[in-house]
Amino acid sequence: MNRGFGSDNHSPVHPWLFESLNQVNHHHAPSYGTDEFTLKAILKIRSVFDWKDLQVLFVFNGTAANVLALKTLCQSYQSVLVSDVSHLNVDECAAPEMVGRVKLIPLPSKQGKLQLKDLKQALIRRGDQHFSQVAGISITQPTELGTVYSPEELQEICRWAQAQGLFVHVDGARLHNALSFLKLSPADLFNKYQVDALSLGGTKNGFLFGEAVLFKKEHPEALYYRKQITQLPSKTRYIAAQFLAYYERQLFHEIAEHQHQLAQLLEKGLIERGICPEYPVQSNAVFVKLEPQWIKEIRKSHFFYVWDEHTKVCRLMMSWDSKVEDISSFLSQIDSLQGGLR
Amino acid sequence: MNRGFGSDNHSPVHPWLFESLNQVNHHHAPSYGTDEFTLKAILKIRSVFDWKDLQVLFVFNGTAANVLALKTLCQSYQSVLVSDVSHLNVDECAAPEMVGRVKLIPLPSKQGKLQLKDLKQALIRRGDQHFSQVAGISITQPTELGTVYSPEELQEICRWAQAQGLFVHVDGARLHNALSFLKLSPADLFNKYQVDALSLGGTKNGFLFGEAVLFKKEHPEALYYRKQITQLPSKTRYIAAQFLAYYERQLFHEIAEHQHQLAQLLEKGLIERGICPEYPVQSNAVFVKLEPQWIKEIRKSHFFYVWDEHTKVCRLMMSWDSKVEDISSFLSQIDSLQGGLR
Amino acid sequence: MNRGFGSDNHSPVHPWLFESLNQVNHHHAPSYGTDEFTLKAILKIRSVFDWKDLQVLFVFNGTAANVLALKTLCQSYQSVLVSDVSHLNVDECAAPEMVGRVKLIPLPSKQGKLQLKDLKQALIRRGDQHFSQVAGISITQPTELGTVYSPEELQEICRWAQAQGLFVHVDGARLHNALSFLKLSPADLFNKYQVDALSLGGTKNGFLFGEAVLFKKEHPEALYYRKQITQLPSKTRYIAAQFLAYYERQLFHEIAEHQHQLAQLLEKGLIERGICPEYPVQSNAVFVKLEPQWIKEIRKSHFFYVWDEHTKVCRLMMSWDSKVEDISSFLSQIDSLQGGLR
Amino acid sequence: MNRGFGSDNHSPVHPWLFESLNQVNHHHAPSYGTDEFTLKAILKIRSVFDWKDLQVLFVFNGTAANVLALKTLCQSYQSVLVSDVSHLNVDECAAPEMVGRVKLIPLPSKQGKLQLKDLKQALIRRGDQHFSQVAGISITQPTELGTVYSPEELQEICRWAQAQGLFVHVDGARLHNALSFLKLSPADLFNKYQVDALSLGGTKNGFLFGEAVLFKKEHPEALYYRKQITQLPSKTRYIAAQFLAYYERQLFHEIAEHQHQLAQLLEKGLIERGICPEYPVQSNAVFVKLEPQWIKEIRKSHFFYVWDEHTKVCRLMMSWDSKVEDISSFLSQIDSLQGGLR
Repeated sequence: MNRGFGSDNHSPVHPWLFESLNQVNHHHAPSYGTDEFTLKAILKIRSVFDWKDLQVLFVFNGTAANVLALKTLCQSYQSVLVSDVSHLNVDECAAPEMVGRVKLIPLPSKQGKLQLKDLKQALIRRGDQHFSQVAGISITQPTELGTVYSPEELQEICRWAQAQGLFVHVDGARLHNALSFLKLSPADLFNKYQVDALSLGGTKNGFLFGEAVLFKKEHPEALYYRKQITQLPSKTRYIAAQFLAYYERQLFHEIAEHQHQLAQLLEKGLIERGICPEYPVQSNAVFVKLEPQWIKEIRKSHFFYVWDEHTKVCRLMMSWDSKVEDISSFLSQIDSLQGGLR
Repeated sequence: MNRGFGSDNHSPVHPWLFESLNQVNHHHAPSYGTDEFTLKAILKIRSVFDWKDLQVLFVFNGTAANVLALKTLCQSYQSVLVSDVSHLNVDECAAPEMVGRVKLIPLPSKQGKLQLKDLKQALIRRGDQHFSQVAGISITQPTELGTVYSPEELQEICRWAQAQGLFVHVDGARLHNALSFLKLSPADLFNKYQVDALSLGGTKNGFLFGEAVLFKKEHPEALYYRKQITQLPSKTRYIAAQFLAYYERQLFHEIAEHQHQLAQLLEKGLIERGICPEYPVQSNAVFVKLEPQWIKEIRKSHFFYVWDEHTKVCRLMMSWDSKVEDISSFLSQIDSLQGGLR
Repeated sequence: MNRGFGSDNHSPVHPWLFESLNQVNHHHAPSYGTDEFTLKAILKIRSVFDWKDLQVLFVFNGTAANVLALKTLCQSYQSVLVSDVSHLNVDECAAPEMVGRVKLIPLPSKQGKLQLKDLKQALIRRGDQHFSQVAGISITQPTELGTVYSPEELQEICRWAQAQGLFVHVDGARLHNALSFLKLSPADLFNKYQVDALSLGGTKNGFLFGEAVLFKKEHPEALYYRKQITQLPSKTRYIAAQFLAYYERQLFHEIAEHQHQLAQLLEKGLIERGICPEYPVQSNAVFVKLEPQWIKEIRKSHFFYVWDEHTKVCRLMMSWDSKVEDISSFLSQIDSLQGGLR
Repeated sequence: MNRGFGSDNHSPVHPWLFESLNQVNHHHAPSYGTDEFTLKAILKIRSVFDWKDLQVLFVFNGTAANVLALKTLCQSYQSVLVSDVSHLNVDECAAPEMVGRVKLIPLPSKQGKLQLKDLKQALIRRGDQHFSQVAGISITQPTELGTVYSPEELQEICRWAQAQGLFVHVDGARLHNALSFLKLSPADLFNKYQVDALSLGGTKNGFLFGEAVLFKKEHPEALYYRKQITQLPSKTRYIAAQFLAYYERQLFHEIAEHQHQLAQLLEKGLIERGICPEYPVQSNAVFVKLEPQWIKEIRKSHFFYVWDEHTKVCRLMMSWDSKVEDISSFLSQIDSLQGGLR
């Protein structure tokens, strides 16, 4: 399959990450997270996020990270406020409810982002035994629409949540794209914004597989929940090794920057051609409405997904291995199609 | 960490399997099981097990495979008969009940194996709304104690189950060790014994990660359940590639044979030293009772687990990379300790 | 506590229903739904709803009836479209998700009623393993806001649902209020609208306790689910007896008519005083916005609930024992308060 | 149906309890446990059990009481040790696992009673993330086999449990039968034995319906769990009234004494006829093995259940309304059948 814009999980494993797998592939290592590489990776992550009490739990994939985070922070009579377009709400086949056993309360979003006024309005009936009690908020950064909460928005939401006794979870499947765009340090998350839990993505950032759940405080029961939701990896060293390389070799930064530059290039090219993306391009995704016949044509050479069946808004996703020539070639095809229209 | 007998998931990835990862690590591939390698691996597995309608679902690990199999075959008002020492019952932190939402009925076992008479006795109160209805049986082959159901035992249990309308699930985390010992073909499972579902292990057979659930008939809902239990792999090609190599390069057979030979060597050496293993050595595990002070001493150079805190029975597990010299060195240490006793 | 407008579950048991309890309170009767009164009540209900294959299951309360209906009609990878103000969504402390193990998709409602256009828009991503699959619709008749779906609205929704292969569940905690208002026969539900399941209320219609789930087709597993969700009544005869009296003595009609007349009387009185109810008064509830200081004052003598903390909309609920004088007295108090304002 | 020995839930409601329903059947009362009768009943129960901090939650039935107790005391990664013949394990259609989301570990029992040595042996792998962690013990008093833990047995188990940090739950569906037999005061339960939770039965003691969960300490979340498991009664006053009458009018004692006397009479009569009950008769049940042809014959006039399909052990259960003449008539029938054998 040609390189396309289908998803940042369509690309192969980044060579440095693949190399990291090879480097730990010798000797025996104890399983289930008790090996030396896992310990090293945890220490590295604590250092990157500058929070020494951070509990770090490796899991296989992003849905699991989200579910483990919420299951640990909530009881079954509690609920979590989420964006109506969040991965938790629409892309996890009800895993949060059925496996995480937490009710989600989807709220309207603006460019994928939760609005403080909606959060406030949803915080009702506290102490009413008939109503699943709101225990926290989950925000996606960057959002599923490629937009990014600004530092002010983050601050405002986190402060309000903390004042109300609500936890804040961040779904950061592509976290470093947002941090890079905002010029924020990872250390801000736990220090400045005081978030309680983070789903930290690997899979969509060039990993073979692997994500992590980061809790600000230690939750001893999270170890059992990880096992129970079937997400305790046997050979944890192979996830740990990738996280180590990702942070030690500055890949997190390099990949995010590269993807954002390409996304901007595409955005610019589209605007020049009179096609305006649906949302501000703030990470590695460009959402754009395309003619149905164009979609069919372009997808033959540059695969991508139609995001909304009704509106024909399409998602064009940059990967670590996306190239300037992919953008040029895509835009050329637009040119031809526009020419054909005249 | 030195090579030891801790577990067959302590060893590194087999070089041929690691190579298979590298071979698919290029170009883009669609995610979530829709790539060409996944299709090839499915076809290969169907051919190995000689069952053309086989539904094959890749997942990350063994607990997930078991949970997905049972969740698909059962409703929440149904239960499954299992051995009291089964992985399902004692090593999955209640994932079958909480995520698979099926009740387990643990039965006494003999050398890890379910006995037909106990199964018969447990099949009670059919149609009684107060009693969780028995829907099937799960057998582990080889068992957690390294023993193997004989073809006659398998036949007897499967026939009885089918006559009673019960499904048969096989937990085959180390399946090929059993098949190899019994000189059975994988094709027998679905053709001769008519089992309904198989958890087919990769992780404990030299894989970096990856298992499969095999259903005799297609269950369309299993796709949704896989996603819901957080086990839909994004980059499925990396699991598929390993299964392809495992079967195309006859690794399944080679590893099983190698492990069994070493286990027998160890068994023989122990018997010669007057130490009789607890169970017949029929796969890659040797269970043996050791003196507490020996345990402490030997584990320094050859790591292994004490299986039963009370009886001090220890488990010595062969891996694909175990060597004859590991056995010799272990036995020498026994010799020294026995000498020291005199 | 004085008679008020708090809820139709604040009133005592209707004397005829209480009498029915006494009438079966002799001799032994087998438990768990196998007694003669239960059989009689089932036959009576089948006759009232004119559907001979109706499966009738008695349970203790309304939340249970809803949960049992949805649990029986759905698998855990499926979801149900509901109104955002539905009892299922906001008054059952996530029982549908946690015990019924079904995802709810709340849709905006108009006067409490689901709109066909919203239902259509929500029916997306069919066959997509990442998305909990919509399996059905639950409508509340009358709604939580006291409004009633018209026959045309019902027809439209039911036909569309059936064309799409979706089930239709009706939460009928106060069903006969709606039927009475619409001059519809109970027989229309299963015959004309072809609904698949009905939660049929008793508690809010003068019963001591007791509800029923009615399925158009028999679902043998529903018996087990009822027991599992802890809702199999031991002494079922006492629920059955009430349903028998309710239908044999035409109480269902009498209570509904009485309540509606009083609600209309109140509506009329309010309008005459320049206070317009929030929604059309179509059953036994009147929703009206009242001044905060009035609320405090009036609740001393006529208890009622503030429905919306933000808007101060209040709910005034008629019971089987509500009296014309309760309305007069309530309106007089309004008069005094309005006088006091001048 | 004639009076028989089928179950203590086959009998009608005790007249004093029925009367109590009538006594509260006037005026409006707030719902969901906020009425004055509920408060009074809670105070009465606190006084009977002599524990002022007792949290008392009324529910509809016994399965619900058990599930609510365990759900409140356990997390989903924890398990509870129970007798293999316990109602929790074999008569609740997996409600404890599926709704209470707790794993049960069934242990062998002696005359229905858990043995300390088995409890000790089952308390393994504490802190092992693969193993569902034992959090408590549930004992049934009297047991499902009509036997009673002695004060010494209770003491021994409770002390051990407390020393190990395990909670103790008592399933007391027929509690006062045991207390009466042992001449123990209800106050001993929380004061002397320090049990953490009690399922206190009403249904099997002459109530129309209604049970209570009693927690030694307050668990605020239990209110939400009660609602979520569909067990928050609307018209709680009708459960409260029965508990008030049960305790104020000493019915708990009277019924227990009466039932035990009759059970002893039956035991004596059977022994005189050479038929030895299977277990000591210590409450209101007599278990006895009967000839298959006798069973058929006797059940025509005195209904009872065959408890074990294989062994033909039958359960003969006394109710509050059982009479001396029922015993005489049953024994006469035995005489005739024995005569017929000669």
